[in-house]
Amino acid sequence: MTNTLYLPELREMLAENNTAELHEFCTALHPARTAEFMEGLTAEEAWAVLQHADMALRAEIFGFFEEEKQVEIIERTDPAQIAPLIAEMPPDDRVDLLAEIDPEIVEQLMPMIPTAERRDILRLSAYPEGTAGAEMTTEFARLDEQSTVHEAINEVRRKAEELETIYYLYAVDQEDHLRGLISFRQLLTAKPNTKVGELMERDIVTANATDDREDVAEKVERYDLLAIPVVDDEYRLVGIITHDDVIDVVREEAVEDAYRSVAVAPLTAGYLETGIWTLSWKRGIWLAILFVEALFTTFALRMYDWVTAVIPWLILFIPLLISTGGNTGNQSATLVITAMSTGNITLRDWWRVVRRELCLGFMLGSVLGLIGFVTALGVMSAYPAQKEIIASATMVEDSSKTTTVGKETSQDSVANGKTPLADDQVKPNLWSSALVVAATLFLLVPCGTLCGAVLPLVFRRLGLDPALMSNPVVASMIDVMGIVIYMNVAIWMLL
Amino acid sequence: MTNTLYLPELREMLAENNTAELHEFCTALHPARTAEFMEGLTAEEAWAVLQHADMALRAEIFGFFEEEKQVEIIERTDPAQIAPLIAEMPPDDRVDLLAEIDPEIVEQLMPMIPTAERRDILRLSAYPEGTAGAEMTTEFARLDEQSTVHEAINEVRRKAEELETIYYLYAVDQEDHLRGLISFRQLLTAKPNTKVGELMERDIVTANATDDREDVAEKVERYDLLAIPVVDDEYRLVGIITHDDVIDVVREEAVEDAYRSVAVAPLTAGYLETGIWTLSWKRGIWLAILFVEALFTTFALRMYDWVTAVIPWLILFIPLLISTGGNTGNQSATLVITAMSTGNITLRDWWRVVRRELCLGFMLGSVLGLIGFVTALGVMSAYPAQKEIIASATMVEDSSKTTTVGKETSQDSVANGKTPLADDQVKPNLWSSALVVAATLFLLVPCGTLCGAVLPLVFRRLGLDPALMSNPVVASMIDVMGIVIYMNVAIWMLL
Repeated sequence: MTNTLYLPELREMLAENNTAELHEFCTALHPARTAEFMEGLTAEEAWAVLQHADMALRAEIFGFFEEEKQVEIIERTDPAQIAPLIAEMPPDDRVDLLAEIDPEIVEQLMPMIPTAERRDILRLSAYPEGTAGAEMTTEFARLDEQSTVHEAINEVRRKAEELETIYYLYAVDQEDHLRGLISFRQLLTAKPNTKVGELMERDIVTANATDDREDVAEKVERYDLLAIPVVDDEYRLVGIITHDDVIDVVREEAVEDAYRSVAVAPLTAGYLETGIWTLSWKRGIWLAILFVEALFTTFALRMYDWVTAVIPWLILFIPLLISTGGNTGNQSATLVITAMSTGNITLRDWWRVVRRELCLGFMLGSVLGLIGFVTALGVMSAYPAQKEIIASATMVEDSSKTTTVGKETSQDSVANGKTPLADDQVKPNLWSSALVVAATLFLLVPCGTLCGAVLPLVFRRLGLDPALMSNPVVASMIDVMGIVIYMNVAIWMLL
Repeated sequence: MTNTLYLPELREMLAENNTAELHEFCTALHPARTAEFMEGLTAEEAWAVLQHADMALRAEIFGFFEEEKQVEIIERTDPAQIAPLIAEMPPDDRVDLLAEIDPEIVEQLMPMIPTAERRDILRLSAYPEGTAGAEMTTEFARLDEQSTVHEAINEVRRKAEELETIYYLYAVDQEDHLRGLISFRQLLTAKPNTKVGELMERDIVTANATDDREDVAEKVERYDLLAIPVVDDEYRLVGIITHDDVIDVVREEAVEDAYRSVAVAPLTAGYLETGIWTLSWKRGIWLAILFVEALFTTFALRMYDWVTAVIPWLILFIPLLISTGGNTGNQSATLVITAMSTGNITLRDWWRVVRRELCLGFMLGSVLGLIGFVTALGVMSAYPAQKEIIASATMVEDSSKTTTVGKETSQDSVANGKTPLADDQVKPNLWSSALVVAATLFLLVPCGTLCGAVLPLVFRRLGLDPALMSNPVVASMIDVMGIVIYMNVAIWMLL
């Protein structure tokens, strides 16, 4: 998505050191768009262009570069030049950025950053990733609740340039305890001599600095906030999180959930930017885990190998049945996980969820069972090898000397004349084989919905992330279940 | 998630008609929180409580009710009482809400809504769902670019109560063409007598009313906007979309994507609110489609039934192999779909994506192949039924008279002494069987990554939604591929 439209012109301007035009380029557009036009430039070229913007604008344009480019510029430029830029960046962004930089370079940079900003960086970087503290900015408007509306407006006007948002103002006491909130809209419509304390909201939606950023995003969404104040355990105001950061959180969490749903460990960069080794590790480790999990299907089939030896056509429907079971389970798991993460259901609703999914499972199982019945009739009626496979199965019974318990059972039923081995029994066998497929679906689909719905609930109950029960994990479990149900239905109905 | 804390008190206040306390309840908290406390009330009770808030606050609290409750209240209350509430609601919200109401009731309501608001409703509801036009609100601050900063501030102050946001102001000409944008922050810090036209940004990020709402959300995200102006084809300003609506769009699209990834048709309500019939239809239709798709695995197994008849142990690994292939394909599909929807890759990057996925596929295939080799060695070395199943297979060959082409081939190879039928050949057979599993994984995994990556790209190229290539669809295709590869590898190496 590199915009190459302006690149030749930009390079020409740089070569000619055309200060006027470079300044014009930096100031004419929205900083985000300026950054886009510069995407094709090297780190050195980009830095040279940025010299033609004043420090505030420089930091703004820089903030819209891709993270990769930002890191490159910082790592390749003289720290003395970079330090003022870092000082100018929004507090939350610069902490995130510095975490990506070579620690040695950060060590060189830090002493050159002004004390106030340096302290701020140290304070913010103390919060663990994924918490409200790590997302918040410290540039917000603080007010004394004793000040008047007129004074408050003047105060905001004075600081407007450096604040991330001026539209929510927070009243704090001497020890920084959060006392109230007033929106700029309220200030505007109030009488100039009114005290802020009389106007402000005291029932404020806040986040704790240690809260999960996802829960914070959910609050901002629910209350349609422009920003949410972040407090510490003593209810001291330590920062705010603004709407744009919340959108980023929602987006990032959605991408993470999508990755989790197919068992890819979260990536820190975009798809194309992630190295092939990292990507293969983040995918491979899960594929290996799932492989081990899927191994249980092999053991299950191994347990029932005498059944498939006697009735070889059973294997025709194994992938079909287990994938249908897996699909049903995945639907349930995703519906439940999504409903939990959007707050639509909580653990207390577990019984409603189980009832719903069981009911749905039997409804879907009946319909799919019917479809399966018709399908199996079609497949089996055109199956010419049927007779010979049955014949072969008989011979296994006759020739094999090492009989297991299972084998004995089947031999017993053969002896009892229950298995349809004679030529004239092909027709009833067609119907009963279709019935086996139908009955398996009827039983497997509710097991799938139940399993898919319950596993995430159990994980949440245990305090684990329900999304760990990703689709492939659920599907693999249901695969094993599918084989066991199918084989037992076959034993019961055919042997 | 019903908050039942206040319910008994609220019901008591209603029974006593305690106006003072009910008024206090309505005004004391954030409207969203007031709405939460009222969740357990019936529609009639909730409406009775709302009578104690003035119209503006009433509309605000009402706006935070769940949609179900809103619909219930509107459908059960006298239209003459409801009409002023509708007139007071934010334009975008009321259009969405009216779309959910019984059309007969809407017909009764509409004539009672003041003309200006009624026209606004008709205009907004003309935009198809999912477009910027359907998301936008029409309550925004318009300015004349000739006015001074002082006049602009006064104008905003006068209208602050009724606007959705006062923090971005839009300059338009006589015909409503969008001319520029100024933030309230800029107004605050500017000299009072400056003309708005001199200060405002002219390079504005806009959305067209017919744009997909997802693309609009992406723009707001990229440029960190508080609101985005929506224009028609003549660049006339027709509305704005604010940050809170953008968060909702991002969230809703994420949920939709999650549903799509497991093949559930999008739900219009939450999981618990969706009727069981609707839910079973939205899941069942896809399960049926996937069932038909998975039927190809049955046909594939049917094609190769002579192979599994000769080498019965092959079936032990079928679910394991196809689920591994499916998992790999799903990872690739999700990575590519996510990268496309976040703008990280475009169609032009297709060759990079294909190269990456093939390379990754062979890397992952090698590792999984190795794991598969060891696993198969373990499983097969402890497989006592091997000899007798081989014996049974030989007997099929001997006894069967109806030979197909495939069967002849295998008979030929049996005749050629290539199949390991003799007792003393069990050991080499162990190694070669493990090799079959390993080779299948080595070939299947790259096919999975390639298929998973290419299908969404092809769908995008065809102008279809890449997310239609949902995980189960991709997985089913790879299942068939897995069976074909496995069987051919087995034929080639073992027969």
